[in-house]
Amino acid sequence: MRVLGIDPGLRNLGWGVIEVSGPRLNHVANGIIRSEGEDLAARLLSLYEALRAVVAVHAPEAAAVEQTFVNKDGAGTLKLGQARGIAMLVPAQAGLTVGEYAPNAVKKAVVGVGHADKAQIAHMVRFQLPGVALAGPDAADALAIAICHAHHLQSAGRLAAALKGAA
Amino acid sequence: MRVLGIDPGLRNLGWGVIEVSGPRLNHVANGIIRSEGEDLAARLLSLYEALRAVVAVHAPEAAAVEQTFVNKDGAGTLKLGQARGIAMLVPAQAGLTVGEYAPNAVKKAVVGVGHADKAQIAHMVRFQLPGVALAGPDAADALAIAICHAHHLQSAGRLAAALKGAA
Repeated sequence: MRVLGIDPGLRNLGWGVIEVSGPRLNHVANGIIRSEGEDLAARLLSLYEALRAVVAVHAPEAAAVEQTFVNKDGAGTLKLGQARGIAMLVPAQAGLTVGEYAPNAVKKAVVGVGHADKAQIAHMVRFQLPGVALAGPDAADALAIAICHAHHLQSAGRLAAALKGAA
Repeated sequence: MRVLGIDPGLRNLGWGVIEVSGPRLNHVANGIIRSEGEDLAARLLSLYEALRAVVAVHAPEAAAVEQTFVNKDGAGTLKLGQARGIAMLVPAQAGLTVGEYAPNAVKKAVVGVGHADKAQIAHMVRFQLPGVALAGPDAADALAIAICHAHHLQSAGRLAAALKGAA
């Protein structure tokens, strides 16, 4: 079963795909989708098209998106929300249910504690997915989200149920 | 030239289409797209599909989306941002440039002052689009956004440029 993790952002959207075979996890691919410029609609469209291509190429059967940290900067929250809307839409459009995990839950699943920094996350992602070449911190975060979702699906027979749902 | 206005929202997304013939404005259609439930990805997908259908049926050549008011409620801003991402994406995907107007600019264009209430907006939308039946306040706001964008395109020969861009 292939699991897609997405770390949403308007400027840098990280994505990562892993393969879950029973208790084993293998890296498939990871990357960062970048958008820049003044035209917000054009940026959202380019995020959408690039993420659609990722889903088309790697054909994930499950997906998860990081729950956005709502900060004090309303304008920043709005930008992130717009990118997150696209990040949720694309897997839903491919017929996948989309899991959501808070940053602390992702860190706890991957590092073992809820307050790990980016370097610790990248280190543990490399440890759990031997041989992975990380496109950057956002891609490491996206793989961590995919690993977190895989753990969630593996526990309590949820994998079978999810596979049934994806069939 | 047909202009689509969108008042974004996750629960209620208002839309309105008007026809611009030189200085004249005519109502084409308006409505509200609703989404409910726990599954955010499914809600965003249903907004996306319903808005795609509006664009397919009414074939607008220009579009505008209200600039969201960033309030103190971070969770509310994030929800609105996610819906707004979809509202920007759909017209961009149809090849339209997407205008953005602050609520005060819309009110000033339609009512003449920047601090009008919803009832005044609906009244002036009915006055400017005789015979219109409004689907609700969010649809009236969406038509007001379309009227504001039409005024913007009509001034300074922007209509010709926009039509050229839409061809």
